[in-house]
Amino acid sequence: MQKKYGLVGVPILFAFLIMAATGNIQLLPNLNTETQSISHNQPEIVSEIIQPQVAEAEEQLVREYTLVIEQTDIQVSPNAVWHAWTFNGTIPAPTLRANQGELLKIKVINNHDIAHSLHAHMTDYDMKHDGSPVNTITGIGAGSVIQPGGEWTYEYNMDTWGTTFFHDHTSSEGHGIKDHILQGLYGAIIVERDPPKTYIDRDIVIVMSEMGYDVERTGPGPTPYFIMNGMGMPGGEHALKEIFEEQGFDGVAAQFNSTMPVFKAKVGETVQFHVINLGDQIHSFHLHGLKMTSSAVQRGTNIQGTTVPLIQGTLETFIVHPDKPAVWLYHCHVVSHADAGMIGLFIVEE
Amino acid sequence: MQKKYGLVGVPILFAFLIMAATGNIQLLPNLNTETQSISHNQPEIVSEIIQPQVAEAEEQLVREYTLVIEQTDIQVSPNAVWHAWTFNGTIPAPTLRANQGELLKIKVINNHDIAHSLHAHMTDYDMKHDGSPVNTITGIGAGSVIQPGGEWTYEYNMDTWGTTFFHDHTSSEGHGIKDHILQGLYGAIIVERDPPKTYIDRDIVIVMSEMGYDVERTGPGPTPYFIMNGMGMPGGEHALKEIFEEQGFDGVAAQFNSTMPVFKAKVGETVQFHVINLGDQIHSFHLHGLKMTSSAVQRGTNIQGTTVPLIQGTLETFIVHPDKPAVWLYHCHVVSHADAGMIGLFIVEE
Amino acid sequence: MQKKYGLVGVPILFAFLIMAATGNIQLLPNLNTETQSISHNQPEIVSEIIQPQVAEAEEQLVREYTLVIEQTDIQVSPNAVWHAWTFNGTIPAPTLRANQGELLKIKVINNHDIAHSLHAHMTDYDMKHDGSPVNTITGIGAGSVIQPGGEWTYEYNMDTWGTTFFHDHTSSEGHGIKDHILQGLYGAIIVERDPPKTYIDRDIVIVMSEMGYDVERTGPGPTPYFIMNGMGMPGGEHALKEIFEEQGFDGVAAQFNSTMPVFKAKVGETVQFHVINLGDQIHSFHLHGLKMTSSAVQRGTNIQGTTVPLIQGTLETFIVHPDKPAVWLYHCHVVSHADAGMIGLFIVEE
Repeated sequence: MQKKYGLVGVPILFAFLIMAATGNIQLLPNLNTETQSISHNQPEIVSEIIQPQVAEAEEQLVREYTLVIEQTDIQVSPNAVWHAWTFNGTIPAPTLRANQGELLKIKVINNHDIAHSLHAHMTDYDMKHDGSPVNTITGIGAGSVIQPGGEWTYEYNMDTWGTTFFHDHTSSEGHGIKDHILQGLYGAIIVERDPPKTYIDRDIVIVMSEMGYDVERTGPGPTPYFIMNGMGMPGGEHALKEIFEEQGFDGVAAQFNSTMPVFKAKVGETVQFHVINLGDQIHSFHLHGLKMTSSAVQRGTNIQGTTVPLIQGTLETFIVHPDKPAVWLYHCHVVSHADAGMIGLFIVEE
Repeated sequence: MQKKYGLVGVPILFAFLIMAATGNIQLLPNLNTETQSISHNQPEIVSEIIQPQVAEAEEQLVREYTLVIEQTDIQVSPNAVWHAWTFNGTIPAPTLRANQGELLKIKVINNHDIAHSLHAHMTDYDMKHDGSPVNTITGIGAGSVIQPGGEWTYEYNMDTWGTTFFHDHTSSEGHGIKDHILQGLYGAIIVERDPPKTYIDRDIVIVMSEMGYDVERTGPGPTPYFIMNGMGMPGGEHALKEIFEEQGFDGVAAQFNSTMPVFKAKVGETVQFHVINLGDQIHSFHLHGLKMTSSAVQRGTNIQGTTVPLIQGTLETFIVHPDKPAVWLYHCHVVSHADAGMIGLFIVEE
Repeated sequence: MQKKYGLVGVPILFAFLIMAATGNIQLLPNLNTETQSISHNQPEIVSEIIQPQVAEAEEQLVREYTLVIEQTDIQVSPNAVWHAWTFNGTIPAPTLRANQGELLKIKVINNHDIAHSLHAHMTDYDMKHDGSPVNTITGIGAGSVIQPGGEWTYEYNMDTWGTTFFHDHTSSEGHGIKDHILQGLYGAIIVERDPPKTYIDRDIVIVMSEMGYDVERTGPGPTPYFIMNGMGMPGGEHALKEIFEEQGFDGVAAQFNSTMPVFKAKVGETVQFHVINLGDQIHSFHLHGLKMTSSAVQRGTNIQGTTVPLIQGTLETFIVHPDKPAVWLYHCHVVSHADAGMIGLFIVEE
């Protein structure tokens, strides 16, 4: 290993780095906190950003997060409870942030009754942190498949900036990796470039997926399947229109961050969307009314037709500059998925 | 509003602009008109370009089109009639053209018995022109969801050049937005950059989709489902081969622009294809024999493998330079869709 | 025809070029040959590179390959035999190589009992070499649809560098083109740019697809459907883990190049992956642990999220620089496809 840092063989250095941790850093401006407000009817399922421990050391900055896997019940409709699996109780997991050049350490504690793991789509790490069956088969990093009650600290060198994601990469009796992911164990990682993009005022993370298998129906009626950030509204915009006709705008507002994710921004801001497909079906993402400039897959290119393709396991990051007050829809442009509930609102305020 | 034009609050200026309209402009060379010829067995379902009103004013050029929504019966096979919904009687709608920097105004008259709208994938417009349930719910631009017998004039600033599209964005009892789109209410908009790309000799618009729900079968036999520009040939190339074996080339020619879209070009021309997926399924587009250079999504890049991915709600625009006479197939490279009828011909003549 | 070479009308020149052929050239370093080793339980189904005839002539270098279509039985699981159709006995076909500027000639001999063809996704050839029903219908190059016992030599000018592919483009009674492709008749073509990319140490070709229709089950038990290079492991990584638990690593090793494709490379090499979707379903490709830099569709761009989208009929080519020993998984990130068997290993050795 001729790299300036080593993931293998220098545990003492890392122990030192952890002890030197300097505490919490508030990563987002207060403004953004508003957008995280959720309705009172609903467990907190909007993506938020948790605060890492950050250590400075001679060689490399270390950024540490802790995620806890546990079962979380989510009332996904009046008649259905999803016995979801979560990192820290939300779907998606809290968004993790790191900076290019740092060492990212994610301690994962498995408080669930079957084995799980965290597999991050990263590009510079030792295979013992893979969190996959390869670890079991080779015996290298076998503990990265975390048994019930156990924990593992995954380590990644942040060699590349951009947005990426993580998800469970285990299976269990009768349930493939697909089921383990769809049950809710996924989240985003935003890696800031060095030097940073200081011009982004606000980041919005949306994970498109489908609901996991363990949904308990408590009564008759529709229940969502196609979801964004864990939420979906069966009937889509048609249902929303009917709610409006019956209950007025208050009925619509009651859906905010309950059955459809709602984000706000202010006129004049530069807003970055990070949209990830961690489902098993294809999705695409259409935001009404705004010019989307790709900052990830097609860097700097306008997204023609204003729809982002999201093949399974891929993402796009794009920037918009809202210049007037508006309520803009966004939805899957696999239109039957939008009709089935994959809709949300982006509200631009003065 | 600090923009040089304002979509809200200057109705008098706009009224003036409309009065100053200077009349029709022929946007395509005559050459192209030949390629729009269709067989006599069939309603006119090939994409064509209608002629806008164009006004010159001090501040901004205004380009105006009128589209009429109505039911149109299309004989999609000897044994099936599609009670389609159309803009101006064709599927796709006539292609609209505008230039970067202009104000595009599309007057839509709803002569159908349920509500419809036009939602354009545009990047600079007031939300009152969204044509979606958001207009109903917020009360801003509620008329952009057009009731039977009504009309609305949608307005967009052409801030970006390139190709985009529009489609119905309403739903009705028992039919989601998906059904409203698949019934035929969609079309392309080509926005010329400023200064213009003068090197394009010919534009070809192909919309891939699936047939809407309201198909009346009048007898036994196959009927198309996967369609390009409203046309499909059940059995695909195998059926075409059988037609040839039974009826010779005349039988094949009778399919032109009846069950498969046929476009012509001349050796030496620069031809631009605009291919859009407005269906609910994934499609991809393979043109035989020619180097495709992307002019939209991946500007200037050769399309490796000569197949264009077309996730739901996305498009590609690419340029070819046919240099020898040929009859080239194009088809969906989801091969089962080609086998089911998504095939067409591009004929290059001396 | 004002090109320096002509595909029509100069048969005498070509006859001369063929006669001047200078024999075999070893295109890959010996190192790569190791990675092509396969288990003894299994017909040779890993992609390999065959050796062309190469002729030098005044005007243009000619590179000639011969491919033979025949039925090949492949034991795809202990309880199932795939009566596949192959070029030269392998799935995919041997990878063909050529250089930009050359004339590529592929002689195809049809030793099967129904008609087949080779349709290459190329960008400069005479339509008589299309290998499609257009040849039948127009009578131009009708022989490029090769009847049983016949042969045809397809010719392409290598005007563009990059990776592309070929597949059967015929149908037969009851079987569409989809079936003809999925039965195994496909392969890759790597066209080296001029001047060549000398920095690539190793090329790896992976074709994702689904198994053709003609599978004979000889006993109870699972059989693969989603395949890479003709191989699939029902149960995916969960099955692999169970094999490990029952039989140890020897059981796992017995799967190498039998139910899952395994490629090796050495630390410090520059490795190029060519991943092609020639199936009828969407796939995506995730390689663990390594930074993928696109060399095809989005040249020079990092692949965000480390998953390559692979819409039907498309490909991606990317480069990795493994810098430490590891066993990395790769799999379809349509996770249910991975769970159903689309997994493989990339082993990096010191």
